[in-house]
Amino acid sequence: MSTIKIDDLPVRDELRGKSPYGAPQLDVPVQLNTNENPYPLPEPLVARIAERVAEAARGLNRYPDRDAIELRTELAAYLTRTGGHRVGVENVWAANGSNEVLQQLLQTFGGPGRTAIGFEPSYSMHALIARGTGTGWISGPRNEDFTIDVEAAVQAIAENAPDVVFVTSPNNPTGTAVEADTVLALYEAAQAAKPSMVVVDEAYVEFSHRDSLLPLLEGRPHLVVSRTMSKAFGAAGLRLGYLAADPAVVDAVQLVRLPYHLSAVTQATALAALEHTDTLLGYVEQLKAERDRLVTELRAIGYEVTESDANFVQFGKFPDAHEAWRKILDRGVLVRDNGVPGWLRVTAGTPEENDAFLDAVRELMKEQER
Amino acid sequence: MSTIKIDDLPVRDELRGKSPYGAPQLDVPVQLNTNENPYPLPEPLVARIAERVAEAARGLNRYPDRDAIELRTELAAYLTRTGGHRVGVENVWAANGSNEVLQQLLQTFGGPGRTAIGFEPSYSMHALIARGTGTGWISGPRNEDFTIDVEAAVQAIAENAPDVVFVTSPNNPTGTAVEADTVLALYEAAQAAKPSMVVVDEAYVEFSHRDSLLPLLEGRPHLVVSRTMSKAFGAAGLRLGYLAADPAVVDAVQLVRLPYHLSAVTQATALAALEHTDTLLGYVEQLKAERDRLVTELRAIGYEVTESDANFVQFGKFPDAHEAWRKILDRGVLVRDNGVPGWLRVTAGTPEENDAFLDAVRELMKEQER
Repeated sequence: MSTIKIDDLPVRDELRGKSPYGAPQLDVPVQLNTNENPYPLPEPLVARIAERVAEAARGLNRYPDRDAIELRTELAAYLTRTGGHRVGVENVWAANGSNEVLQQLLQTFGGPGRTAIGFEPSYSMHALIARGTGTGWISGPRNEDFTIDVEAAVQAIAENAPDVVFVTSPNNPTGTAVEADTVLALYEAAQAAKPSMVVVDEAYVEFSHRDSLLPLLEGRPHLVVSRTMSKAFGAAGLRLGYLAADPAVVDAVQLVRLPYHLSAVTQATALAALEHTDTLLGYVEQLKAERDRLVTELRAIGYEVTESDANFVQFGKFPDAHEAWRKILDRGVLVRDNGVPGWLRVTAGTPEENDAFLDAVRELMKEQER
Repeated sequence: MSTIKIDDLPVRDELRGKSPYGAPQLDVPVQLNTNENPYPLPEPLVARIAERVAEAARGLNRYPDRDAIELRTELAAYLTRTGGHRVGVENVWAANGSNEVLQQLLQTFGGPGRTAIGFEPSYSMHALIARGTGTGWISGPRNEDFTIDVEAAVQAIAENAPDVVFVTSPNNPTGTAVEADTVLALYEAAQAAKPSMVVVDEAYVEFSHRDSLLPLLEGRPHLVVSRTMSKAFGAAGLRLGYLAADPAVVDAVQLVRLPYHLSAVTQATALAALEHTDTLLGYVEQLKAERDRLVTELRAIGYEVTESDANFVQFGKFPDAHEAWRKILDRGVLVRDNGVPGWLRVTAGTPEENDAFLDAVRELMKEQER
């Protein structure tokens, strides 16, 4: 119809020259680039999803439960059972992926004239969602080993007085878990500076060696913990993220959420998956073992590896990480170049996929040693 | 956990004292308040949804098709077949309800420091999504009969130079269709003033006596037509909205869309529904006949009725519309009070539901005449 380009349209200035977010999806035998769970849902769960979705489809002419009460109740029960902290339906909110949860939080507590801080490298969507909601972005520091430099972080919060503080634990793309004491120090700094909201992004926490930071919610109404069913529940295709927080936070995000944002089929599918929690958490245990094996073997080969509490491992260091990424790809294995100089990230896949990856990087090491 | 309120949190100033959007969902026998399609999906379609969702669930551990290519292709085919204008996959974008489509458009073309205009009363989410995206809102005028006052609208555009112009056709809550000539006049005014984007919200167009405004897209890269599967496809629970526009617009919204925003189950369910388009459009014909019957009977009873091209009818006039709303509710029928002084809105339901509604408002008229 037309041959005009984005920049010929009256788009916002900050969007000019930008490209959409997203890892390249290449058709390669072994895809270990987007931290997906390699285990397909078990067939009994697939059957249960079909059953619950059919039930929901019979009422699909009606709007879905706007408040997703049944789903939030079951998510609360899951958190209470596994997170070391009792939460109820009034503490939980759900949306289309944790990205939408974070977007709603920034629409509520960030936005034009306000700022958010993250400690980078971290999940790059935090900065992108900030941009999309008109929230100013502040890039905070990390230590050389990718842990948070508490003193520098507290100082950055005190100096900038951001409205929202993001803490990702385990951190993506480095895999680094954050100590409860660190979160407490940042929370206190954030309260002293503003007060501002502190959002702990626990997308990968089920893979961690440590406990969830959920118990920190007690007595801290400005703390939010966000979660997702994409990773531990093996349901990246479902787009179901959620948060736990003070009930007032749950009330507040409802001022900005689009009405009926969560479809009846999404709610039905998520409820079916939650019925199969124990089976799915069994896969998580397998993946944790494979993650630990990747760390051990990569070190044995001679790579540097960042301590990982997630379902992926950051490894290096490469004089040119993108060149190394391409050479691994040439061997049929797709990993992720997140733009962290010298480092690449590999998702823990099935034992066979991980073997293929280890073979590829073993060859790469030999090539580099020549 | 806590007894604090929203306003005790550091929420944005413009959210203070606000309530979440949404019609009250009361447990009443006849619910004609949210413009839902009263016909449940036919069982063969329910079975097909279960089948396609099961297929999608087998790959649910992977992220969904980020670009929803198959779905956009089928939506484009539907528009081409029914809209009088050829569109391809490159012209179509889809999201979780047309609300999310509109939100993405405002994130791209509106936002902080920019403004949008609508001609009110109209779909109240336009103003709310503007607020949620930091876009300034301008309330434009209408004639007494709820048609757009073209001269006044052109003047409002010239004076305010908004970045986005919303035109809702058929209009909600009045049911009023907009002439192609009116859209053209507003489009020209918008180009002269800025240039700005013109968004024609055709959520209810399948119920109209007139053709879609899709053919106006030809040669107008700043025009967008938005649609939904909630109404004509009887799938309000699915949350599937979409737009047709110049390919550059489709590229542009991808700069702000959350990655993987549209779940694999949503895509699978929508594709199943599109396979059954002809059956579903058959229900639309029944609803159009019922809508016309409501208009005729309401007038026969003695009510004023606004001309309707949608699946709902605006009727009045009441000295106190909310009081009338309550009296109709007392008779077991839930209609909608949209806050348009003197008027209420009723959704066209099944013949039995409409009979129950007509009985209720007949009694109300008798009561008022006493």
